This record gives sequence, structure tokens and C-alpha cells, in this order.
Amino acid sequence: MKIAIAGSGALGCGFGYHLQKGGADVTLLDNWEQHIKTISEKGLTISVNGSKDNQEMDICRPHELKEKMDVIFVFTKSMGLKSMMESIEHIIGPDTKIVCLLNGLGHLKTLEKYINRKNIIMGTTVWTAGIDAPGHTHFNGQGPVEIQNSDPSEKEATIEIVDLLQKSGLNGEYSENVNFTIWRKACVNGTMNALCTILDANIEEVFATPTIDSMLRNIIKEFATVAKHQDNVTLNVEETISYLKSLADKVGAHYPSMHQDLNNNRPTEIDFLNGEVAEASKKLGLEAPYCQQITDLIHAKEAILGITTTKVK
Amino acid sequence: MKIAIAGSGALGCGFGYHLQKGGADVTLLDNWEQHIKTISEKGLTISVNGSKDNQEMDICRPHELKEKMDVIFVFTKSMGLKSMMESIEHIIGPDTKIVCLLNGLGHLKTLEKYINRKNIIMGTTVWTAGIDAPGHTHFNGQGPVEIQNSDPSEKEATIEIVDLLQKSGLNGEYSENVNFTIWRKACVNGTMNALCTILDANIEEVFATPTIDSMLRNIIKEFATVAKHQDNVTLNVEETISYLKSLADKVGAHYPSMHQDLNNNRPTEIDFLNGEVAEASKKLGLEAPYCQQITDLIHAKEAILGITTTKVK
Repeated sequence: MKIAIAGSGALGCGFGYHLQKGGADVTLLDNWEQHIKTISEKGLTISVNGSKDNQEMDICRPHELKEKMDVIFVFTKSMGLKSMMESIEHIIGPDTKIVCLLNGLGHLKTLEKYINRKNIIMGTTVWTAGIDAPGHTHFNGQGPVEIQNSDPSEKEATIEIVDLLQKSGLNGEYSENVNFTIWRKACVNGTMNALCTILDANIEEVFATPTIDSMLRNIIKEFATVAKHQDNVTLNVEETISYLKSLADKVGAHYPSMHQDLNNNRPTEIDFLNGEVAEASKKLGLEAPYCQQITDLIHAKEAILGITTTKVK
Repeated sequence: MKIAIAGSGALGCGFGYHLQKGGADVTLLDNWEQHIKTISEKGLTISVNGSKDNQEMDICRPHELKEKMDVIFVFTKSMGLKSMMESIEHIIGPDTKIVCLLNGLGHLKTLEKYINRKNIIMGTTVWTAGIDAPGHTHFNGQGPVEIQNSDPSEKEATIEIVDLLQKSGLNGEYSENVNFTIWRKACVNGTMNALCTILDANIEEVFATPTIDSMLRNIIKEFATVAKHQDNVTLNVEETISYLKSLADKVGAHYPSMHQDLNNNRPTEIDFLNGEVAEASKKLGLEAPYCQQITDLIHAKEAILGITTTKVK
């Protein structure tokens, strides 16, 4: 099975490494010169849950890959998806499947501009990863990776990919309702991550404040309304709050990724979380003031820190 | 004219000092022992726009003053008004006027629990002040002090106080629509102060962000709705935004008082600004989500910094 990893940052490298070990013919795609050079010359150095390995891997820039792929995993940041799709159109054949595990909302809409819905497989993962240096990454967790075909007719092809993920040690699972998982994950990022970022505090601190229930409930209500209208996904607001609180208990005094993005002078993915809910609400003739204000505040914070954001949506 | 200053912090001392110079019989009231001791023994040391003076002044705790007053100026923090009114009830006679120049909203309601509306004079001031040490304060600006009787029949008595303020160098002005001034000032504090506090940035930085218009407009719309319903005050949203921007231009890279409050581990007055608009909206059967979320975020920030707030409303 010919597989391309479109966006070979830390998560992309981790997936590519495992899929190659599982027997697939993998090519990593990226645009970071030093990263490409190091992997081409010295292989990928990767630490998986603490155990180190070095693996020869094919890597090149998107335009340098000439063949049509069987499967393409996209692993960009949300705001990079559109330009990545533009640069890989030539490797997409009529049966090429795209697997999208990105955080955030609205990606199916973007993908449909480049590929038929029947070939789009949406999913989520809880694997985490980081880059230590060009060509050196780490990859942690146990998964799972949950995926589901966007078109009901394509279950069989998706099950094949689940099997490959299983065989590769990535803990693939077929999901009967992946939209629920995507929305629930977006709720986590749109509350926990966003609030920690605005308040410049860790999860434990934010969840110990006296206004946490009000803050969570007001944001989640807006997510739930759009989830229902747009994807017929039912998010029970009170159950989601309980879920977030139990998650916060487990995670403790940790700064979520959005907070780390800002601290490392990177733009956040807020437009694909609360921003997407605010925009989608407008299109439905509704309002999402809590999500709108969170989005405005995060963008203000980015600007104050001198982070340039390109509006890609 | 017998005048008590109920709450003799920096602003109270500045007013008391000027009123005594203007010929009034002034007593400062406060509960800060070291401050009382210093002023009793060594007089009030005050710097007015940079020129220093020392003045003998009467000062005591509220319960120690036994006579009924002609006029009482209240100069507490918003959250201190209720308990101050409780401790000065014995010096309020049937004709005692209360002058309230506090920042924030909802103070008339509080005052009416202790004194007939006909004796309540509401106002605003742009004098600023600070405490350097117990018994040592500074007082800056040129005023004005705008005041208006809450009951139309009491204009004459209010004009007398305006005259006294004039004579004392405090630049008193009779206002025909003091509620407009109070609401407009609340708009400044509920946007400029609140946003700088949440974003931990100065006024110049916050007003240079790309989302400033959206943030201001959404908050001010809610202030305007309550101002109209509750006090028949018309706040033009776009005009208020222009006003705020021109004010921000003048003030520049300055951290507003609410930001300073948090940095000095003091609770903010958010419940009397955006919090009051959110509460008042509920009572009117409306919603004020932008103000509600700002209030929740500020209270969260207070809690994260370990500042204890007592809900006094």
C-alpha cells in the first residue's frame, strides 16, 4: 500500500514510522529543508514512549512525489490544510483515500474542495508527539486512532486502513460515530485550551476557579447547538462538563498545547474551534457570543505577542 | 457646612483637604488604624499636582463620629459601599445629603436602602489620587466633578454643593444628565480596563489588536441596552467606540486601574461594571453574554492569583 504523509512534523513522522514498520510503502512529505536533509541523509531518529530507534525513510517536498498514492494521511496544523491540499493534488487518484486526524472543526468542508467525499476518512487520535530537532522526534501514548468513512458506502476500504493501523501498532479502531468524537475533542480544545491560554494558567488552576462551570457551560452550549444543526451530533452539555472535569483531574497542572503555541510565538488554531462555531452559527442564523468573544480575545493575545496570523478560512 | 468623608483613601483625603480649605467643617472617616494615627498626630501630608502641603485634619473611625452631617461624600471601593453605609447610618439626618462619585453601576440602588432618594446626589470625577504611605497621599488632575440630584426637586441643594466644590478648587459642575456620564465612564472601565486586565496588556497594545472593534462593540451594545431600559440613557454604540479610541490614543501605553488592582492582589470592581450589566440584563429578561463572560474571566483571574473576593452584591 502506497502511503504519503502530508505534513511530516512530529505526529506525521510517528505515523509514517509505524506504518512503514507495519509493511506499507511510506513517503514522508514536508517543506522544512533541514528536516528533509537530516532524514534523507541519516534516517529518522524517533523515540517511541521512551525507546529510541533510527529508521531509513523516504522524504521529499510535496511537488517532488510523482506517483498517485493509495492513502494520504494529512498531518498539518489546521491553518495549513488548504495549502497542503493544493500542493498534493497531483498525487490524488480517483481511488486515493485521504485520512484526516486533525484537531478542530470544518476540515471536511475544506477537503471536499479537493477530493470526492467518498474518499475522505475522518478521525481523531490521542497519540501525542514533539520535535526535538530536525529529523529527531518523539511519539507517545497508546492511541487509539478512531476513523470512519464520510460516505457510508466506503466502510470496507476504511476497515482495511484500520487493519493496517492495527498491524502497525497504532491502535486503529473503526468508529461508528466519529463526528461525535471530533466534536467532543473540539469541546476540550475550545474550553480547556482556550481558557488556559486567555487566563495564562494551567488546567488545574483554571478548573479550580469559582466561575469554571459558567465558563464551560456557556461555551459548550454553543458547540452543542452547531454540532446538532450541522452534523446531527448530540452533545449533552452537562455530561460534557463532567467529562471535561474528569479529564482535568487526570491531567492536572499541565499547560495545554494552545498555551504552548502562544508561548512559542506560534498562531493558535482558535479559528478552527470557537471561531468555527461562531462562523457556523452565523450561517445558521444563530449567535455564538461566547465563542465569538473567546476567538476575539485569543486573536488579540496573538497580536499583542506579535504573532502574525494569516486568515486562511 | 459639616461634611464627612466616608472612606478616606487617596481620593477621599484629596476631597476632604480641598473642602476644608474651601471653608467647610470636614471630618475624615476611615478604618485603617495607621492612617488615622498618622493624620491625627502629624496631619495629612498631601501633594496636589506636585506641590506638597501638610494640613491638620479631623479623622476618626465611622462609629466615633456622633453628630449628624450636612453632606457625606462616600469614597469607598464599590464593594465597600454597603458596609460603609451601615457604619454611618447614625450620622445621617433627615436632610443629610450623600454625594456618591464612585466608579461603576448600581450604587443608587445600594444607597436607597439607607437613605431617601431625595437626599442622594450622584456624580463622577476624573480627579485621580494615590496613597504613598499612611497619612501621605497625592491628588492629581483638574477635575471636573460632575454632580446631579437623583430627585428633580433637590436641584437647589445640589447647586450649593457645586458652589462649595468650586470654591474649594475641585472644579464642581452641575450636570443635567449625570447618568449619561456615569454610564459612559462605566463603558470605559468595562472595556478598556477589563480587556487590558484579561489580556495582561496596556491600553495601546489592546487597542492595536485586529479584534478591538468586535470586542468593544459587543460589550458596549450590552451596556447600551441596559442603560436605555434601566435609566433611559442613550449610548450610541458607534460614537462610544470612537470616544474610547480617542481616549486610548491620549492615554497610550498605560495600564488601567483594574490591571493594577490585580497586580497588587486586590479584587477588581468587575461586579459593578460588566457584572452589573449581566445581572441587570437577566432581570430585564435579556442576556448579556459578552459581559457575563468578561465577568467570569476576571473572577477566574482573581482566583488564579489567590485574591479572595467577597460577593457583596
